[in-house]
Amino acid sequence: MVYETKAVVRRRTLRDALIAAAERAIEKEGLRGMKARELAHTVGCAVGAIYNVFTDLDDLIFAVNALTLEQLEKTLTVAGGDTADPHADAIKALVHLGLAYTDYATANTRRWRVLFDHRLPDGKQVPTWYTANLARLFVYIEEPLRKLAPALSPARRALLARSLFSAVHGIVLVGLEEKLQHLPLPVLREQVTVMVEAMAKGLAQDSK
Amino acid sequence: MVYETKAVVRRRTLRDALIAAAERAIEKEGLRGMKARELAHTVGCAVGAIYNVFTDLDDLIFAVNALTLEQLEKTLTVAGGDTADPHADAIKALVHLGLAYTDYATANTRRWRVLFDHRLPDGKQVPTWYTANLARLFVYIEEPLRKLAPALSPARRALLARSLFSAVHGIVLVGLEEKLQHLPLPVLREQVTVMVEAMAKGLAQDSK
Repeated sequence: MVYETKAVVRRRTLRDALIAAAERAIEKEGLRGMKARELAHTVGCAVGAIYNVFTDLDDLIFAVNALTLEQLEKTLTVAGGDTADPHADAIKALVHLGLAYTDYATANTRRWRVLFDHRLPDGKQVPTWYTANLARLFVYIEEPLRKLAPALSPARRALLARSLFSAVHGIVLVGLEEKLQHLPLPVLREQVTVMVEAMAKGLAQDSK
Repeated sequence: MVYETKAVVRRRTLRDALIAAAERAIEKEGLRGMKARELAHTVGCAVGAIYNVFTDLDDLIFAVNALTLEQLEKTLTVAGGDTADPHADAIKALVHLGLAYTDYATANTRRWRVLFDHRLPDGKQVPTWYTANLARLFVYIEEPLRKLAPALSPARRALLARSLFSAVHGIVLVGLEEKLQHLPLPVLREQVTVMVEAMAKGLAQDSK
């Protein structure tokens, strides 16, 4: 058993409590809810204590975003289907992923928005562990693309996976936008289905 | 000639000056640059005078966004091409629109972001004149869709135009995102081309 000093345990407990408080604040009010004073009040520590366990609030937001990505990843179960028609299987799998993303974003809109709305101050870099977590999610899209267009190089496939994700993200983002007419969930899911099927068929056609 | 009182002229002059100041502020710093005190200082009026010509800063932002939409619309010249192959023409036109959007967003990133980043306080509605301006832009996408999938009802076509726009918007948005790797413009343009072609081909295939 690894021996942990009381200080280490205390640090970790404070860290976890702050992350949990930040999650609640974000779910309630989005990024606007992320105020050091209020977080400190919620967990019962001094404002300065936050900066003993996080470099700054941006680091705390990255910790919440990592949990959001984990939640999202749990919904990305790969659709069954390993029939004699790999194209049809791949299209089905891509639609399934698109709909899982749509459902997660709809059910967790504030958490999901923070993934994108959080802007870093100039000069501050995205932590490499976070970029690695993000990259892992794209692999779910690359797998069906491999079946759909086997001739693509890994670099092209990765680029296309990103574009496919971005297209679905855009449809969901604009679909949930209040400034345009907000699409009801069944309509949004149907649009994601139609568009992902169209993209997948078009890409398969190109790769022939 | 319509007779205008000095007060009307003064009002309009102040309004125009505030819009111009807001445009510069947004181009320099995005929404963060929209501070009443600084705008008043720039145009040389009292802070309170702003609220004689705009209900609030949201109204001023809508005025700037309307000019941004006008700038964008000017780039949406319809691609030539009225050949014997209406499908090919439609695909070409859609790619052309996608690339015009990509280029505008890349060259005017801060102005373009404000179209989407500006959130209204709860209860405040988007002005109907603004919604009408937005709707006009979607017609540019509906025209080629009519050629591509003539069997679609106008309502389906409008929905699909929105989804096509949203998909391209997503690709551009994620492409210009610093948190993921920022795509160089030629790569981004190429991805928009590949994806729009794939979507258009897939949609044409479905409508047969």
